Amino acid sequence: IEQQHNKDLLLYLNDLHHADIAEIIDELDLDDATYIIKLLNSEKTAEVLMELDEDNREKVLSNLSAKEIADEIEEMDTDDAADIVAELSEEIKDQVIANIEDEEHAENIVELLRYDEDSAGGLMAKELVKVNENWSVTGCMSEMREQAENVTRVHSIYVVDNKQRLKGRLSLKDLLTAPSSAQISDVYIKKVDYVKVNTPGEEVARIMQKYDLEAIPVVNETGKLVGRVTIDDIVDFIKEEADKDYQMAAGISEDIEADAGILDMVKARLPWLILALLGGFVTVRITGNFEDAMTKYGVLFFFTPLIAAMAGNVGVQSSAIMVQGIANNTLRGSLIKRLLREIGLSLLNGLILAGILLLGSHFLLGQAYIIGVTVAISLISVIIIASTIGTVVPITLHKYGIDPALATGPFITTSNDICGILIYFTIAKFILGF
Amino acid sequence: IEQQHNKDLLLYLNDLHHADIAEIIDELDLDDATYIIKLLNSEKTAEVLMELDEDNREKVLSNLSAKEIADEIEEMDTDDAADIVAELSEEIKDQVIANIEDEEHAENIVELLRYDEDSAGGLMAKELVKVNENWSVTGCMSEMREQAENVTRVHSIYVVDNKQRLKGRLSLKDLLTAPSSAQISDVYIKKVDYVKVNTPGEEVARIMQKYDLEAIPVVNETGKLVGRVTIDDIVDFIKEEADKDYQMAAGISEDIEADAGILDMVKARLPWLILALLGGFVTVRITGNFEDAMTKYGVLFFFTPLIAAMAGNVGVQSSAIMVQGIANNTLRGSLIKRLLREIGLSLLNGLILAGILLLGSHFLLGQAYIIGVTVAISLISVIIIASTIGTVVPITLHKYGIDPALATGPFITTSNDICGILIYFTIAKFILGF
Repeated sequence: IEQQHNKDLLLYLNDLHHADIAEIIDELDLDDATYIIKLLNSEKTAEVLMELDEDNREKVLSNLSAKEIADEIEEMDTDDAADIVAELSEEIKDQVIANIEDEEHAENIVELLRYDEDSAGGLMAKELVKVNENWSVTGCMSEMREQAENVTRVHSIYVVDNKQRLKGRLSLKDLLTAPSSAQISDVYIKKVDYVKVNTPGEEVARIMQKYDLEAIPVVNETGKLVGRVTIDDIVDFIKEEADKDYQMAAGISEDIEADAGILDMVKARLPWLILALLGGFVTVRITGNFEDAMTKYGVLFFFTPLIAAMAGNVGVQSSAIMVQGIANNTLRGSLIKRLLREIGLSLLNGLILAGILLLGSHFLLGQAYIIGVTVAISLISVIIIASTIGTVVPITLHKYGIDPALATGPFITTSNDICGILIYFTIAKFILGF
Repeated sequence: IEQQHNKDLLLYLNDLHHADIAEIIDELDLDDATYIIKLLNSEKTAEVLMELDEDNREKVLSNLSAKEIADEIEEMDTDDAADIVAELSEEIKDQVIANIEDEEHAENIVELLRYDEDSAGGLMAKELVKVNENWSVTGCMSEMREQAENVTRVHSIYVVDNKQRLKGRLSLKDLLTAPSSAQISDVYIKKVDYVKVNTPGEEVARIMQKYDLEAIPVVNETGKLVGRVTIDDIVDFIKEEADKDYQMAAGISEDIEADAGILDMVKARLPWLILALLGGFVTVRITGNFEDAMTKYGVLFFFTPLIAAMAGNVGVQSSAIMVQGIANNTLRGSLIKRLLREIGLSLLNGLILAGILLLGSHFLLGQAYIIGVTVAISLISVIIIASTIGTVVPITLHKYGIDPALATGPFITTSNDICGILIYFTIAKFILGF
């Protein structure tokens, strides 16, 4: 296809959805990708660019001049444009912005760049349809038609006062059925959900999901309507956050694609493995301290991986529930009550597991009764402590403004390994007296 | 508030959004909840019911007669209605359906109940606006207005032929600007994304996310338009799936809320802990087989938790990447290539970690050089094997139609503990010759 059959190729590509073209380009090498990008018309390119992998987009853009990039930016909605511009280097960023011909568009992009990308301000677009409460229905219709030109999907019409403060919303249906002599202030709905520019993305997602909204207006500190967040951006946001949390729980920092470069992957994974290794040093130290037991009760050392594994698994279960509860805002009741519940649950699980362990260590592993009892008692204690740590750590991190997702994965398994082994040998020493 | 001040209460509640009322009711005891549900008018109740926790809804509904439930169902969109009816017991289900007065509504619900709840058929609603390609624009407008009465949000107008087969879509904008004498067939857009009734929910979500759709039409085997899936249901679906995967990775089966009953929680968590315990038995057996080493190289046993922890962490990292790649459909290239990448990455990580281990075991733990080397070599091998298992298991499960998410969490850590410890002692025996 790459034999420069421009016409055929263009015909074929123009028939494809931009998301599909992006998928094809993601597979091509840089020269071919740039070639196709330049072949397409501006509007299509802008859409394709948005759908590309971040890494590939960066490469393709580095092959374009600031003027060419500015032309693409011009075709984009402000939120997409701001995302792209934010990815550019400082120097090129300024050049690109200077090259945008539509001054208002440029200003809007600069405004959006000011907000944290995970806040409502960072997620919103400036494009929306708004009407003044003092307008008449007829005047409003023509004004609206003009505004709607720039807006891909209208969703809602927002009503503002003379100071651009958000007052309410208007349904297209109501507008169409209202007598043409009516004032907007007579027909609009005063109840409208909104978020502030600094509302975190998670909160925006929660509100939109709870109330089944397809768009939500965003106001600044003084109540002025400054933009709106649409559901398609929130869908992407939810998906990204979920992927991030999932990877975090597996000990992978940053959102890494399955196809990321090997050095990026080392950077994302190695720190957690080093943490686990250092935790391992601590367990070696602890176990070493109980060396005396080796001559008489060497069999105790066979059980250390079992104890560590149980501590880790229980801890991860508890912390996952807490992290999710915090993220979904479904935690109710006090920490103490929640902790008691978790401990009750652990006690129940622990007793059942201890029973299985007693039977198993006797019949399957052929260990002495006293060893089985020692390990079983340790197991119950370890499980209770592990679930306590798993419950308390995420809440504490959250309280101090740290992402509780950090507490899952290697962090919790490592600290629970350490505590678990310490408890195990301490109890064993107490019972067996070595 | 519960002093039967009906009027005040009603006034207050009518002012609230139904999702907020649902949150309040979720906090109340059953009697108060039923009382409020009965107090509200049918339309509001129907909306509130949809937002309640599944458990609470079940309880509240059990306090209502089949006729009362049918009245609520009547007010709901078909997709919500079908979800509620699906939760009822067989016996009540039939009574409720028999009590629905609107026959078409009842038939639609029965149809929806036939589909798997996680397929497009299970997610779709029957409510939509469709027009026949042979209609004129004028005729179409009045017909549409009538249909739109039953549809909360219009999104798209779908175009069908005389056999109700999906032909394309129509934008409201095009319809408004078209000359009133035109035929629908002259103005509609022939390109329309759609899914089939049996398309899995994940695939529907992927398509809607990729193409930024807010609704997608659903056709049956013969191409007949049978319903549409809206983005709000997909947002809920994505969130639920992400929560499920997250919990699965933490060893919690089923989607359990932080406030679930204690027995439900035991049922969700205990099986995984039993699996881990049985895996622990195997590690005890393996370690026991190398008992001979204890007299001369007892220190080797101090390192078993470290080896097990590293094997577990590396395995979880690899499997998480694979599970996510499979879920997001971003895996490209052959299994062999992917495996080589993972092994290369593990080798790199392993070498760095082995270096740290060599230094640490000498300077921090004061171990003999030969012990450090033995553990370091084992560590590299264990890491490579662990990442291989973490990569291969999810792909294999997926190939045989099993949810690869099962492979994360306790399953992968347990099997990696076992393999890791076996490799460790085998290598140690080979080097140290005990």
